[in-house]
Amino acid sequence: MQPSDHSPAASLPGSAVFPHRHLTGIAGLKPHEITFLLDEAEQWVAANRGSKKNDKRLRGLTQINAFFENSTRTLLSFEIAGKRLRADVVNMHAATSSVKKGETLIDTAMTLNAMRADVIVIRHGSSGAVRLIADKVDCPVLNAGDGSHEHPTQALLDALTIRRRRGTIHNQRVVICGDVLHSRVARSNILALTSLSADVRVCAPSTLMPAGIERMGVTPFTDFDTALEGADVVMMLRLQNERMAGGFVPSNREFHLRYGLTLKRLAKAQPGALVMHPGPMNRGVEIDSAVADHVDQSAITEQVEMGVAVRMACLDVLTRRSRGVKGWA
Amino acid sequence: MQPSDHSPAASLPGSAVFPHRHLTGIAGLKPHEITFLLDEAEQWVAANRGSKKNDKRLRGLTQINAFFENSTRTLLSFEIAGKRLRADVVNMHAATSSVKKGETLIDTAMTLNAMRADVIVIRHGSSGAVRLIADKVDCPVLNAGDGSHEHPTQALLDALTIRRRRGTIHNQRVVICGDVLHSRVARSNILALTSLSADVRVCAPSTLMPAGIERMGVTPFTDFDTALEGADVVMMLRLQNERMAGGFVPSNREFHLRYGLTLKRLAKAQPGALVMHPGPMNRGVEIDSAVADHVDQSAITEQVEMGVAVRMACLDVLTRRSRGVKGWA
Amino acid sequence: MQPSDHSPAASLPGSAVFPHRHLTGIAGLKPHEITFLLDEAEQWVAANRGSKKNDKRLRGLTQINAFFENSTRTLLSFEIAGKRLRADVVNMHAATSSVKKGETLIDTAMTLNAMRADVIVIRHGSSGAVRLIADKVDCPVLNAGDGSHEHPTQALLDALTIRRRRGTIHNQRVVICGDVLHSRVARSNILALTSLSADVRVCAPSTLMPAGIERMGVTPFTDFDTALEGADVVMMLRLQNERMAGGFVPSNREFHLRYGLTLKRLAKAQPGALVMHPGPMNRGVEIDSAVADHVDQSAITEQVEMGVAVRMACLDVLTRRSRGVKGWA
Repeated sequence: MQPSDHSPAASLPGSAVFPHRHLTGIAGLKPHEITFLLDEAEQWVAANRGSKKNDKRLRGLTQINAFFENSTRTLLSFEIAGKRLRADVVNMHAATSSVKKGETLIDTAMTLNAMRADVIVIRHGSSGAVRLIADKVDCPVLNAGDGSHEHPTQALLDALTIRRRRGTIHNQRVVICGDVLHSRVARSNILALTSLSADVRVCAPSTLMPAGIERMGVTPFTDFDTALEGADVVMMLRLQNERMAGGFVPSNREFHLRYGLTLKRLAKAQPGALVMHPGPMNRGVEIDSAVADHVDQSAITEQVEMGVAVRMACLDVLTRRSRGVKGWA
Repeated sequence: MQPSDHSPAASLPGSAVFPHRHLTGIAGLKPHEITFLLDEAEQWVAANRGSKKNDKRLRGLTQINAFFENSTRTLLSFEIAGKRLRADVVNMHAATSSVKKGETLIDTAMTLNAMRADVIVIRHGSSGAVRLIADKVDCPVLNAGDGSHEHPTQALLDALTIRRRRGTIHNQRVVICGDVLHSRVARSNILALTSLSADVRVCAPSTLMPAGIERMGVTPFTDFDTALEGADVVMMLRLQNERMAGGFVPSNREFHLRYGLTLKRLAKAQPGALVMHPGPMNRGVEIDSAVADHVDQSAITEQVEMGVAVRMACLDVLTRRSRGVKGWA
Repeated sequence: MQPSDHSPAASLPGSAVFPHRHLTGIAGLKPHEITFLLDEAEQWVAANRGSKKNDKRLRGLTQINAFFENSTRTLLSFEIAGKRLRADVVNMHAATSSVKKGETLIDTAMTLNAMRADVIVIRHGSSGAVRLIADKVDCPVLNAGDGSHEHPTQALLDALTIRRRRGTIHNQRVVICGDVLHSRVARSNILALTSLSADVRVCAPSTLMPAGIERMGVTPFTDFDTALEGADVVMMLRLQNERMAGGFVPSNREFHLRYGLTLKRLAKAQPGALVMHPGPMNRGVEIDSAVADHVDQSAITEQVEMGVAVRMACLDVLTRRSRGVKGWA
């Protein structure tokens, strides 16, 4: 178990340490609440590495993964997380096309609720869709990514990866580079990392940089080399293909020249700086293979591993009230 | 537990109360057999509302959901039902396109059978396909909707909803309105409700009304306002998009004017009349949101809830012989 | 339990009897290793036919079925096999289109590995893709068919079917007929059957016969009637639709005339010769319905049954090391 950056949680009883019913985003979470989820995840990292991996705490509970947008990896991660806790896991693949109207989305939510789901995991192409559903159902809702809004479990797994590899998040200089404008990964990470007092820099071409990003407590850069100076962690964002086609970026080649993470560029960061990417990677576009596969510095597969652990922690914590866990009723 | 409308079942031992191997339709079921399934479902309604929801009775049994036609909701309901009873639930998504020939459908059935399925749930676009498969396999088959033939679990969940909300089905005036011609939901409901001695009216434009429907023991109406007089239950059918495009209906707007359930129209029914819809709803077409979301009168989400309970009851009852349950061997 | 053709395995302790970490193909397996897997499968044939079908030996283990190519039947078989052993089974449906580059395939492998899968089952359209993944992950990998390379569990289930129906594989004359050139089923079967000293003949039009096939220890024929003389087993291959369209075969009708298995043609084989087909069948093309459904001679549905048993055996055997089974650590 790693030491936490913050420890007020230790003195709080049960539900007081995490009073939220849903996990719709990092926004609204206090630093000790984020740290609590990271601390909880540690036990699952250890359990997943052992030979006996499952636990019975979610037995008899129904977990519905309602994915209105395709995401093979995130769905797989949540499905494995739930099954390792013995939940009855059911996937609902809903093409966005069949759910065009707000009313219908709410009807879908009411349907899942009526089936007496105990926890619902939602991925949706529209920002705010998860919140809309959370307001309508009786069980905890977990946001698995909604539009360009939030992707909180991604931020938690990234924070856990940084804490384990760097020892702490406090004062770490983290550079987030890529399509910051459209990225829920960037947004959730900025919220989590600034909350845990990291020194966060964001780097993007001006067309992909949100206006007024400084108000989130980060320092914006358009020049990647300058941003990298003194970086402890370099977090690359995936360049979505639709952006490349959409005129935001002149070309993959041009993007790679200015914002691709190469070994040469990585040398501008602190020696031993951690390299991260939420996957799936566009090798040769936002990241070079030599960097992605760097034995010492790349934490990319470790991020995937932390993802399962973090999701197990979230599923466990959010269902404690309904399971009547002592201190959480 | 609600009182049953019929009670001869109470005096019958084990399998005599439900002697059928399959559930391919409501046709062929005696009133006390329908009532028996509704009675059995009550325990699952209660269990699903509790905090510990699963039961082990189907442990070690393989349930295959073979869906040759997409149906997110029905598949989800059967999958949750099976998992709550601890069956090994496996979904087979078969695009109708890949199963064009009758021989191939039988080959698929033989394949599922050879894998030693213990219960098979089938959804198919062709009327009679489920019966064809049932004749070829060694295990119970449950019809999850076949063409315009039957959808028996839908009728059972509707009957359970009515019985719980109205106290009885006997003599209840139920108006079924919409595309009666193509609707397996209408067909199965007519069979179940007339069997339990409800007073059933069907209402549809003449292009969507089956010829000779009176022979099923129902009264046909083409004017919705007239049909609604004295109604205890108003059951709206989903208007399939393909009907709207196919010339059966002049336009959504026209259909809504004549057959859409509005608050004003609902006022023509009995005070407090129950509103039902099998979902998913076309809000603003066959039903107005003010009606669909009516706090006291809409039973639409309750129907979804009853669906899981009814399916659990059917899965349990149909596998009793193979499980060697006392009185069923 | 059937007697084995070879018995050196009986005197070998634990892992010495099956020293392989993966099952990427039949190539590389010794005769006694193949026989060992067949012997192991026998217990699952018996268990699957009983009323209590599941076993707990894979409880707490995560089985990921990563299918980069659609295969409803094979996926279903592996999924049922894993669930009957209580593994946490997770399916990853990856359209081949989204995994175009070699790097990305390895990234996918690394992702599954990072999620701490305990066994990975892979189906892929490219020959050698499974081996590529096996080299990158820490857990056993099972090949569920890769390109025109191998489909080892198909060969094992076919061998088990022959052994059970004919008493032995040794000296059985097996005719494999159809698109031998592109068939991984043919390739794996040739390797397994020659290894167990069957007398294997292959029969195909010259456009679908691999050059130098004699080097695999089989006798090639282009005339089906000649090939059938004295056959104990006739194994038909599925004619892929893309071959029919691709100019390899003049027409379905022409193919059927020369290479379709009819009752008349079957009469040229030994009396009571066994008829096999990996499914799904093109009835009327490579096989007539009268042959496919022959009560005494067709073993086609039995092949499907053996498939689940063989896959249970493979999943069990390959995970013994990680589960710390005595003699396998």
